[in-house]
Amino acid sequence: MKITKGGITQAKGFKANGIWCGIKRSKKEDLSLVVSDHVANTACVFTKNSIVAAPLTVCKKHLKNNKAQAVIVNSGNANCFTGKSGYRHAEKMTELTAASLNIKVSDVLVTSTGIIGKPLPIEHVESGMRNLVDGLSNKGGTQFAKGILTTDTTLKEKSVQIKIGSSVVNIGGCCKGSGMIAPNMATMLGFITTDAAISPKLLKIALKKATEESFNCITVDGCMSTNDMVVLMANGQAGNTPIMDKGNEFDLFCKTLTFVCCDLAKKIVLDGEGATKFVKIQVKGAKTHKQAKDIGLMIANSMLVKTAIYGSNPNWGRVAAAVGALGIKQISEDQLKIDFSSFKKKNVSITTTLNIGNASATVFTSDLSHEYIRINTEYT
Amino acid sequence: MKITKGGITQAKGFKANGIWCGIKRSKKEDLSLVVSDHVANTACVFTKNSIVAAPLTVCKKHLKNNKAQAVIVNSGNANCFTGKSGYRHAEKMTELTAASLNIKVSDVLVTSTGIIGKPLPIEHVESGMRNLVDGLSNKGGTQFAKGILTTDTTLKEKSVQIKIGSSVVNIGGCCKGSGMIAPNMATMLGFITTDAAISPKLLKIALKKATEESFNCITVDGCMSTNDMVVLMANGQAGNTPIMDKGNEFDLFCKTLTFVCCDLAKKIVLDGEGATKFVKIQVKGAKTHKQAKDIGLMIANSMLVKTAIYGSNPNWGRVAAAVGALGIKQISEDQLKIDFSSFKKKNVSITTTLNIGNASATVFTSDLSHEYIRINTEYT
Repeated sequence: MKITKGGITQAKGFKANGIWCGIKRSKKEDLSLVVSDHVANTACVFTKNSIVAAPLTVCKKHLKNNKAQAVIVNSGNANCFTGKSGYRHAEKMTELTAASLNIKVSDVLVTSTGIIGKPLPIEHVESGMRNLVDGLSNKGGTQFAKGILTTDTTLKEKSVQIKIGSSVVNIGGCCKGSGMIAPNMATMLGFITTDAAISPKLLKIALKKATEESFNCITVDGCMSTNDMVVLMANGQAGNTPIMDKGNEFDLFCKTLTFVCCDLAKKIVLDGEGATKFVKIQVKGAKTHKQAKDIGLMIANSMLVKTAIYGSNPNWGRVAAAVGALGIKQISEDQLKIDFSSFKKKNVSITTTLNIGNASATVFTSDLSHEYIRINTEYT
Repeated sequence: MKITKGGITQAKGFKANGIWCGIKRSKKEDLSLVVSDHVANTACVFTKNSIVAAPLTVCKKHLKNNKAQAVIVNSGNANCFTGKSGYRHAEKMTELTAASLNIKVSDVLVTSTGIIGKPLPIEHVESGMRNLVDGLSNKGGTQFAKGILTTDTTLKEKSVQIKIGSSVVNIGGCCKGSGMIAPNMATMLGFITTDAAISPKLLKIALKKATEESFNCITVDGCMSTNDMVVLMANGQAGNTPIMDKGNEFDLFCKTLTFVCCDLAKKIVLDGEGATKFVKIQVKGAKTHKQAKDIGLMIANSMLVKTAIYGSNPNWGRVAAAVGALGIKQISEDQLKIDFSSFKKKNVSITTTLNIGNASATVFTSDLSHEYIRINTEYT
């Protein structure tokens, strides 16, 4: 595997762009577009929140055939809890995109991120569309990555190259997210493109697996958003023999995709609102992977653990209390083992061994600082 | 119902005291004792954390006959995660108490609160015992209430008087807790005494019900402790015809006990670490009471909702996101209604109506402030 630099336009046949259309008062980029030369097999995972933003509802409808050719994204407004007009605006974004690119409306996906409950200023999207499309380029990955940010302070991109058979295959992605981050896709958006040829069914399996081990293993504040999704487009331009079955080639594809997603997920944690530390939490010796992950998240979301880390105060009693908080009967003081690195360094690791089974899981989080409070108190 | 002032020594036949024995470096009271003239019917509820502090294990053993005569409490050290010697120290506390009072060891309960994982300095308890017992008084309720505090900044006491038949019956209590407060008894201790004559079985039912509607409906930081318990002693000295069956008199007793527990629980929230606001969260129109309470706690524990309240920023989108975070399918944007009072006042209320059923629940919480971070960063 070779690390490359192109983000979502590293894979062959993808163009992208990001511009400021007028949604953000800061005049930073707020409208992004990625387009494949050909219709691509496409998979998505969505937030598990019961309240789902309008664009996601449109995406679910357009994705029924597991194909898409373009994704339009705005930042600065989540278009969530915006009623019927919100749904209409999300549809309108796909219509404007389709018309500008001369492709089918049902081949366009749409997503939004930003403040909830305010009407989307669709007129800005409309007036920016021409400019957005004109600037599309196969070097536009970074520009796209800029246009999806909200409270993020860093760009989050990753791309890699592998060989499948004799074909060079690219997988690249970018994402946004820094607060309201919790498992099951809390305020984060992820966009991944690949030129691999792979069946829609296997693409879906690969994305689900990669997400479970990356974006769903991170938490900043335990809060789950209404808008989050990860989209993966595969346009087959690498020319590899299409991956149609599980086997070595599929495994390699999954492994590479998971690598890209994990890298992006860690970038979200590192940019967590107010984060001063990057915390790796391992739970070992659990009955099941799910149990290990649940306990890991319980530790990761404990405000007392988070503040202890912020204060460089290795209070393992707080970790023990968090481990026990799920009330799992088999866990006992005698068997429980807690190890940790120095809390004074930027990278902190906590390893909890339950000694009740053989399953394990790793989750990532940040600490809870004064800066988190400041950001989320002064947000609007 | 008449409000009285005596706390846990308002009920006839109870004496109490609280002293500094040397556990707390601050030289504040750290050892408390309450004694009934006669063995009392006693009920307890305990933390649901899998990691349980040694004193609770001793209490469970001593409570097998549902009777107790004295409760000894230390603050400043939780005697949790302290292994076999911790258990021995908890036993020793009951032995020292029994010897000083000339009562049975199995009639003594013990509990501890404070830092986890440090050996309990049992020698201080031993040397303080004489002083503690000598000062026992039927006016000692407040002194007892002082000796159980940790990061609390206020005393938390309540007592009331009712008539059962022609007998005057007292119910009084005190509690501690200000951080690591979450449903199911997170770091809180509650002590309630009554001179009512009531069967052990009904006492248990009454306490469970009252706790469910009070201490288990509050959350400060969503963290659950290893040490928490609420104990209720009924010594029958009021001389009422013993309450042996469910009926009007039992209902009155339950209602009054719940009133006392709710008052104490609210005092914990008001004293929440760093709290600047008192927040009442009502969830209406849910399928079940449990569902309503789960959603209420999801809102109450959302860091984003808590910081919005701290910042007097009525961001209802964050409330909506928290409501949806449990992923309950029936909840929809069209049906969901969110009302709230001004976030600028000290008392904030948020009412969420789901419109999917007829059940409701109320939970109480505080906001998340810079002061919470400071307290929990600099704790040790």
